[in-house]
Amino acid sequence: MKSLEAYQSCINNALVSRLQGDEFSEPKGLYEPCKYILQNGGKRVRASLVLLASKMFSDSYEQALPVSLAFETFHNFTLIHDDIMDKAPIRRGIPTVHVKWDENTAILSGDAVMIIAYRFFEESGIFVPQLFRLLNKTALEVCEGQQYDVDLEKASLSDSFVSESVYLKMIELKTSVLLAACLKAGAIVGGASAEDADRMYEIGRLIGVAFQLQDDVLDTFGNEKTFGKKIGGDIRVNKKTYLLIKALQVLQNTDKEDLLHLMSDESIDEVEKFNKVVSLYNKADVKALTVSKISTYFEKAQSILEEIQIDDSKKQELRLFMTELLCREY
Amino acid sequence: MKSLEAYQSCINNALVSRLQGDEFSEPKGLYEPCKYILQNGGKRVRASLVLLASKMFSDSYEQALPVSLAFETFHNFTLIHDDIMDKAPIRRGIPTVHVKWDENTAILSGDAVMIIAYRFFEESGIFVPQLFRLLNKTALEVCEGQQYDVDLEKASLSDSFVSESVYLKMIELKTSVLLAACLKAGAIVGGASAEDADRMYEIGRLIGVAFQLQDDVLDTFGNEKTFGKKIGGDIRVNKKTYLLIKALQVLQNTDKEDLLHLMSDESIDEVEKFNKVVSLYNKADVKALTVSKISTYFEKAQSILEEIQIDDSKKQELRLFMTELLCREY
Repeated sequence: MKSLEAYQSCINNALVSRLQGDEFSEPKGLYEPCKYILQNGGKRVRASLVLLASKMFSDSYEQALPVSLAFETFHNFTLIHDDIMDKAPIRRGIPTVHVKWDENTAILSGDAVMIIAYRFFEESGIFVPQLFRLLNKTALEVCEGQQYDVDLEKASLSDSFVSESVYLKMIELKTSVLLAACLKAGAIVGGASAEDADRMYEIGRLIGVAFQLQDDVLDTFGNEKTFGKKIGGDIRVNKKTYLLIKALQVLQNTDKEDLLHLMSDESIDEVEKFNKVVSLYNKADVKALTVSKISTYFEKAQSILEEIQIDDSKKQELRLFMTELLCREY
Repeated sequence: MKSLEAYQSCINNALVSRLQGDEFSEPKGLYEPCKYILQNGGKRVRASLVLLASKMFSDSYEQALPVSLAFETFHNFTLIHDDIMDKAPIRRGIPTVHVKWDENTAILSGDAVMIIAYRFFEESGIFVPQLFRLLNKTALEVCEGQQYDVDLEKASLSDSFVSESVYLKMIELKTSVLLAACLKAGAIVGGASAEDADRMYEIGRLIGVAFQLQDDVLDTFGNEKTFGKKIGGDIRVNKKTYLLIKALQVLQNTDKEDLLHLMSDESIDEVEKFNKVVSLYNKADVKALTVSKISTYFEKAQSILEEIQIDDSKKQELRLFMTELLCREY
């Protein structure tokens, strides 16, 4: 993302330099996997959001660097353990930790990465107690979100648990609260008032949910080139997305039964399944329903941004970031 | 342990009451396993040491209760993940989390238990930043200790890595630093000076190492009834204990070769192997060497305890605890 490019190399350099020290050198069997995932790039969205938020309330963003590394590191901890649970072989184009080493190594070095995240927080001076509470709360919520994701995946599609409200709660906990906490933490370190820090949290929460909903739309209705991955993956693996849950809410009788059947049938041809499901999605108008929901979240986030009493020019970067998210190719 | 009995029910009650709240209720798939391990007793040694240490420097120990829960909870996090790595089926007489549920649940709820430990720390007021640094440092060291344990287990017995110094470092990191941190944290919350808090840390470190060395002695030379588990387990599974490492250091030529052979031979009869290994251990006099090492650690710990300038009566509980450890049945 263009809006975050300015921060990425700064974050990468800081992370490499912090991990080079003696503190994280021995035993190699523990720290090599930590460095492997932490230094293998990624877009550094979370760390960038911390810096961007801090700069909104301050002249510089250097004071927020340790906190930004903490959140980025925490995010990478969730990736190591999630990848074990999902049996994912590849992450950012290279083998996942549990594939390159083994599961035990991935469990233990994942634990270490989480603790390293906490260590990076130590350098935030007077803000430590407040940021500590924020990270604890957020970290536990991320675990809750992961569990709701597992619960949703295991539940039968016709179970009342598989509902719009549970789905929204799951994506909020699994993804949005971390983005929200990044914006809030950056604001705190930048010297924002408690009210403005809470506003930043709310903006992060809203755009996080919107981003996830948009991911659901793009996976089915997106352009393969601009989306960057194959279209139709969610339908192929019967994933319980917002589109599917919404369609089952809207459709009646045989349409609903057809959709339930299509999303549990293992024998049907992939292309035929995709076309039939999309046709039912269109009948239920779920693309428009979801896009409208996304817009509601974005507009709410924008109006909260307007409430923050700082120079308008200070809001440009966050506005650009939000626009980039909203304008991803449908 | 008699010296800690006074604290156990207080800790158990506090833990049950803290876990009952709404905060740790949903999703059940995440929090039930957390409560399962946290509420299934254990001796509460770590939490008790926090309270005991706090009472040495203060009239009461209530102020240290949240910190004691934090350390006990952290310890339980390590148990959940270690049990996955060791494929252990039973813990404290009931199925381990990954057996009762599954591995993914154990990974995720283990993560949550670690974060809950950090949450309990939030209630320590002005001590938060200091305790936070102490827990972070200790937590990372415990991971390092676990990795050294894995590395030692994987290494060939004739590898120079399998040495007295690496073994001592491993048990110090894996076990002692947590006991040390418990004593230090209790002292801090009880109002001890920085010097006395550091002395308490050192006492914990020394008795932790002594305790582990004693465990090695008891596993081979102990009395089955008083030790509480079958004698000879370490020899049976070719475990690299202090006794074995020390014996290989002392023995020469064919004795050394015999021991190396015995501890890698899978075909030999169990009883014959035990008797032959013990006979070589006796030839190397490793029981006496280890007991003397243990005494050195204990005496050092006792002399540091004497340096602390508090009323002698205030030291009685810790002294009793140390004596109980030292007088376990050989």
